[in-house]
Amino acid sequence: MSDKKRIYKPKPVSGFPEWLPEERQAEQVWFDHIRRVFESYGFCSIETPSVEELDAINAKGGDGGADVDKEIYVLERLHKEEGDKKAHLALHFDQTVPLARYTAQHFNELVFPFKRYQMQRVWRGERPQAGRFREFYQCDIDVINIDHLPLHFDAEMPAIIWETLSSLPGMENEEIQIRISNRKILVGLCEAIGFQDSTSVIRIVDRLEKDGMVSTSNKLRELIYGENTPATDETPIRHFLSLCRNKYNNSDDLRDALQTNKGIDTSNPTLKEGIKKLAFVLDQLSHLPEGAVVADLSIVRGLDYYTGTVYETVFTEDPGYGSICSGGRYDDLAGNYINKHLPGVGISIGFTRLFDRIRNKGTLPVKGISPADILVVLPNEDSRALMNETAQTLRARGYKVETFHSASKLKRQMAYAEKKGIPYVWFPPFEDGNPHEVKNMSNGEQKAATPQDWTKDEN
Amino acid sequence: MSDKKRIYKPKPVSGFPEWLPEERQAEQVWFDHIRRVFESYGFCSIETPSVEELDAINAKGGDGGADVDKEIYVLERLHKEEGDKKAHLALHFDQTVPLARYTAQHFNELVFPFKRYQMQRVWRGERPQAGRFREFYQCDIDVINIDHLPLHFDAEMPAIIWETLSSLPGMENEEIQIRISNRKILVGLCEAIGFQDSTSVIRIVDRLEKDGMVSTSNKLRELIYGENTPATDETPIRHFLSLCRNKYNNSDDLRDALQTNKGIDTSNPTLKEGIKKLAFVLDQLSHLPEGAVVADLSIVRGLDYYTGTVYETVFTEDPGYGSICSGGRYDDLAGNYINKHLPGVGISIGFTRLFDRIRNKGTLPVKGISPADILVVLPNEDSRALMNETAQTLRARGYKVETFHSASKLKRQMAYAEKKGIPYVWFPPFEDGNPHEVKNMSNGEQKAATPQDWTKDEN
Repeated sequence: MSDKKRIYKPKPVSGFPEWLPEERQAEQVWFDHIRRVFESYGFCSIETPSVEELDAINAKGGDGGADVDKEIYVLERLHKEEGDKKAHLALHFDQTVPLARYTAQHFNELVFPFKRYQMQRVWRGERPQAGRFREFYQCDIDVINIDHLPLHFDAEMPAIIWETLSSLPGMENEEIQIRISNRKILVGLCEAIGFQDSTSVIRIVDRLEKDGMVSTSNKLRELIYGENTPATDETPIRHFLSLCRNKYNNSDDLRDALQTNKGIDTSNPTLKEGIKKLAFVLDQLSHLPEGAVVADLSIVRGLDYYTGTVYETVFTEDPGYGSICSGGRYDDLAGNYINKHLPGVGISIGFTRLFDRIRNKGTLPVKGISPADILVVLPNEDSRALMNETAQTLRARGYKVETFHSASKLKRQMAYAEKKGIPYVWFPPFEDGNPHEVKNMSNGEQKAATPQDWTKDEN
Repeated sequence: MSDKKRIYKPKPVSGFPEWLPEERQAEQVWFDHIRRVFESYGFCSIETPSVEELDAINAKGGDGGADVDKEIYVLERLHKEEGDKKAHLALHFDQTVPLARYTAQHFNELVFPFKRYQMQRVWRGERPQAGRFREFYQCDIDVINIDHLPLHFDAEMPAIIWETLSSLPGMENEEIQIRISNRKILVGLCEAIGFQDSTSVIRIVDRLEKDGMVSTSNKLRELIYGENTPATDETPIRHFLSLCRNKYNNSDDLRDALQTNKGIDTSNPTLKEGIKKLAFVLDQLSHLPEGAVVADLSIVRGLDYYTGTVYETVFTEDPGYGSICSGGRYDDLAGNYINKHLPGVGISIGFTRLFDRIRNKGTLPVKGISPADILVVLPNEDSRALMNETAQTLRARGYKVETFHSASKLKRQMAYAEKKGIPYVWFPPFEDGNPHEVKNMSNGEQKAATPQDWTKDEN
């Protein structure tokens, strides 16, 4: 038997990120910024529990794609007791499933159009890999209305997201692009070109960016003409894919491209409806900088879920990184729960993945380890009351103030401010009658000051 | 086969609270307030993952008491695959266990004293009952140092908590009291009175408030003199319990009470050390209003964990509700993980339970359903661009602004502002050349205004 303690090396939990204090401070700057923009458009905050009933969460839907089943975490009590039921609670994997339940449950207490934002953690139990998280924040906005939701909201979403992302501190040098489509265009094109199985076509087109033109074209040929059958006329496929590959800066470019026939019946009503709606949304966004928003017909998103407008957002110089902000319009949010027709449109920032990328780039706005503006030093033990009083006066005026805990050498106290990134050090008078003094740590200047009216230096 | 959809009635998940938008807005006011106070003392924010390795979380410690094992939720993937290991992740039940792992893991990157706050959800899988939550927020502050942590920090904790709680919006009429003890006093009293098994005594005293004097006194007599044995001299027990039951407003009252002998050896060194330390903390807090902080020797908290100062906070008029904010000093935060001696002191607000109580009292600061200051109406479809431009100008000036989505009757648009609690309605001009007008919804006054320089009415 040994008295020596056993030491377990602490280790990070794979896929569950955490940040150092100075990084967390930048994360708070981001959350504050996003909240400010969302609220400036009148979106209210809600939070839902981390869990939902397994039946609710396991229902199809959401933007999670077909594999989401495998990624659900269920909760079990560690020490189950007799009579405990089978697990029936699961952590939510997105914020749309909880929103549907919330909206139905509180239907009579909500005011419609219901505009809400939600910034919470979500969980996906996928196998960990680089750049993938099993716990991460999403920042969502959605608008839900009863029976009819005007198309203007489809344009408001990307406008809000553009304002949010383009002004995120640390993102100044990132060029992003919001890509929009309307699902009806792809469905209409399939009909117009005579493809029977539009779902399979859409599944293939969805991978256009990843698979490239040649592979996608081959897959489509196989799908339509059968394996190993040489095609008689590939013009419609080529035209279809070139329509999908191109980007359109405005509604005129979009209409021009889609009125070229080349084997496609441009009078198809689904196609025409899709074009009209997408053109409307583009027109409403014409005040944004050129290239901020483009039409991209290859965008699909959550196959079973979105019915109209769909969004993705990419880094222009690195589209292969995938979408950092996605969403779209859905016909009926909560049909499982309530006998009301509730169309909605929403968009979601994949917060943690985006934050981690910018963190790795080293451009985050890192201020310091301490949030404090000022460290008040303790010249000697007799000055403790004066130190505390000075700090309280400054706090009452809105400053964030640390006090030093022991009357150690001033050099050591100043080194503490330096290490924690505290920009000002405050010296209460060592002797009665002397003035307080404040040192600006960035330029070394030291001046007399009084706690009642001191202000930060400009810049 | 019927086409009719099956409707599942959405239901709240028992023990997992969620709020309506207007309540959530008040909750945000609370979080902002608490964050502001914590940061004004220089505490930095951290967040840890929702999960820890089961081994770490299952280790003893924390303020959860002995039953915490039973309350741990473990995570399982819904569709386990071959090769999946046994569950090894669990949701944290407090923020102390994660803090210990975090501090050890990032030891070399932290600056000590490490002052952090943490406002996250924690989970306890207990059987649901009124006023108990299975998911709730805690707001913690802790200070950790290497080898030695000055006693001043033990006094800073209640000062910060007093400032936080006494100025929480909606708590203005609540009288709260922070009760402090030092564990060494109880231990020393047991030694001084000749009780061998101080742990059992402390367990009994811990229930003094719940069980009352008579029951506690009987239990102690049984413990010390054995069952059914009439006591020879009960003076020490009575004196001991009266010391525990009384409250002491300042260090003088405390010292006076504890120097009375009545069968207790007041020269016991553990007792003397405890008194000295508690008196020091009380003296440091003498600037707070009378009754804000009292010494209460019956306070125990987390038996295995705290070693010195301990805190509880109660509603003065309803102490039976239990503690809303608790904590204390611990000798060694992360001894399992790292070969460093890391003493700390911390305190934790049981946020959700407190918020829910004030919510039920109806005194929360509820502003409205929308965070917006202004609703800009849409007089007719031709004014949409002007409406959007007006809203953008006001947003750029820091206002939160909703626009109305359709050119419906003005009465309907104003009813929307009313229902959402938006205090101002903005009318862009119906005709060129006319001025904008703004209506104050609380007093009905309507005035001409320009988006570039309008300001809210005073009050």
